[in-house]
Amino acid sequence: MAEKIIINDVGPRDGLQNQAVTLEPQQRVALIRALLTAGVKHIEVGSFVSPTAVPAMRGTAEVIAALPRGDFHFSALIPNLKGYDLAKASGIDTVSLVIAASNTMNEKNIRMNNAQVLSFAKDVLGRAQADNFRTLACIATAWECPFEGLIPEKTVIDLCAELFAAGAPEVVLADTIGAASPAQVKSLMSKLVAEFGAQRLSCHFHDTRAMGVANVYAAVECGVRKFDSSIGGLGGCPFAPGASGNVATEDVVLMLNQMGFDTGIDLAKLVLAADLVAEQTGAHATANSAKWIKRQIEKGLL
Amino acid sequence: MAEKIIINDVGPRDGLQNQAVTLEPQQRVALIRALLTAGVKHIEVGSFVSPTAVPAMRGTAEVIAALPRGDFHFSALIPNLKGYDLAKASGIDTVSLVIAASNTMNEKNIRMNNAQVLSFAKDVLGRAQADNFRTLACIATAWECPFEGLIPEKTVIDLCAELFAAGAPEVVLADTIGAASPAQVKSLMSKLVAEFGAQRLSCHFHDTRAMGVANVYAAVECGVRKFDSSIGGLGGCPFAPGASGNVATEDVVLMLNQMGFDTGIDLAKLVLAADLVAEQTGAHATANSAKWIKRQIEKGLL
Repeated sequence: MAEKIIINDVGPRDGLQNQAVTLEPQQRVALIRALLTAGVKHIEVGSFVSPTAVPAMRGTAEVIAALPRGDFHFSALIPNLKGYDLAKASGIDTVSLVIAASNTMNEKNIRMNNAQVLSFAKDVLGRAQADNFRTLACIATAWECPFEGLIPEKTVIDLCAELFAAGAPEVVLADTIGAASPAQVKSLMSKLVAEFGAQRLSCHFHDTRAMGVANVYAAVECGVRKFDSSIGGLGGCPFAPGASGNVATEDVVLMLNQMGFDTGIDLAKLVLAADLVAEQTGAHATANSAKWIKRQIEKGLL
Repeated sequence: MAEKIIINDVGPRDGLQNQAVTLEPQQRVALIRALLTAGVKHIEVGSFVSPTAVPAMRGTAEVIAALPRGDFHFSALIPNLKGYDLAKASGIDTVSLVIAASNTMNEKNIRMNNAQVLSFAKDVLGRAQADNFRTLACIATAWECPFEGLIPEKTVIDLCAELFAAGAPEVVLADTIGAASPAQVKSLMSKLVAEFGAQRLSCHFHDTRAMGVANVYAAVECGVRKFDSSIGGLGGCPFAPGASGNVATEDVVLMLNQMGFDTGIDLAKLVLAADLVAEQTGAHATANSAKWIKRQIEKGLL
């Protein structure tokens, strides 16, 4: 039996909110359905943020209402308690909240300082437990902040401990600007896995410096078995200068499948989802492996 | 003191021989000089193959004659003894010879079967020792052959042993078609390092499946401290269907420098070499990190 690795595709949120084009809710649903068809069962489907600040995420409740029911794990990002209430009302089962490891990033991203955002996170985690609602707590800029530079590992380890203590079932370590090397990933993730166990940790990498796939490998070597990635390598962060695309789901799945892990994802169907989002947004899909995957399909090998 | 890693840029050979455009010898020299300016001291500058079979490598002796002298390590590829004699006459100090781990690949690539090519390799290694000439013995398709599929590790370990026994100072393990995953790289390289020591081994990866950089990292973790890469990610193999670009020197150097290794290479000057070869060949440079590197230069950070 192959060991499972969970892929959480954040393209319908992290990817789409960074495109020049704003998709209609039904287009977003079509993309999510294409991912489901490929076997992706964990998807960040949108966010409950101000439609003025992030127009691309307008209509997330509509998207959620149109999603199929089944053995799927949909989540939506929330930046504040208003977002929490909207998420709860939408019928989604999981919210993700983001707390940056650096004060400046928190202030730029959600206009709260570290203490305020931690208090917000604890508030959400408490409510979520009472409401029987799942929460993914994401630590952004866990390796480097575009404003403050390298983040001390102790800062991240302590923040992780606070989030788990406040009831977070899972913490996502995010290299929001794609700045970490695999050596840095190994260093931090091996400590976090030793401290908290791999089962409660997940990683989120960007490919800015072409190390996204190598970072996934380094984290796998540390025992991590859940990753965020984005279909077609779309993504970035509007408030993080220098961030570029998330590591592409196709690249990650190709590697993990070949390494013998069970992702449950069909590469041939996955590239159809990548083609769809490229067509919808006019963005070039950036997955390096896409050409190779398509050649295999043409040859009938995939 | 940072630990050194040697980068051997094979772009002027592996890269240029796979472009639609054939460069003049003086253009090839300009590219090699741009690499030297960036601090790349090991360069495969051409090959002594039939100019009918590989027109892009016509004039390699002229290229070599025009190269500056200094603390540089230039090599040329040779497919046969005629090539050996031409290389020796050219005044270059190192030849590289390629022996595929699979019989079919040897027959397609250089029209010799395994026994013939091993005999040729031993012949060259013997002559090179007598002529006080350095040889890089490259094992092609060391993980997977496009014709025969996965290569058993024992085949590669045995071939490596034969090459070292015949006097090879260094063996390069090449994933010629970019088919290996980092798990496969770790598996084979850890065995080879245990058997022969990391000092005599080098790795050569392609980025076909977007795992080139991850494979470099996996080999570094095994102790390997020398890598082939290609400026701008140019490359491939004309006789290996499905091969695409070599792992880009920029991507590899960015990662290794950030990991604290001393490559001796200046990234800002390296992207000038990548821009030059893109301009010379009309090929798009494929290094994912190039945009990020250029942004750092614009900001005065590199």
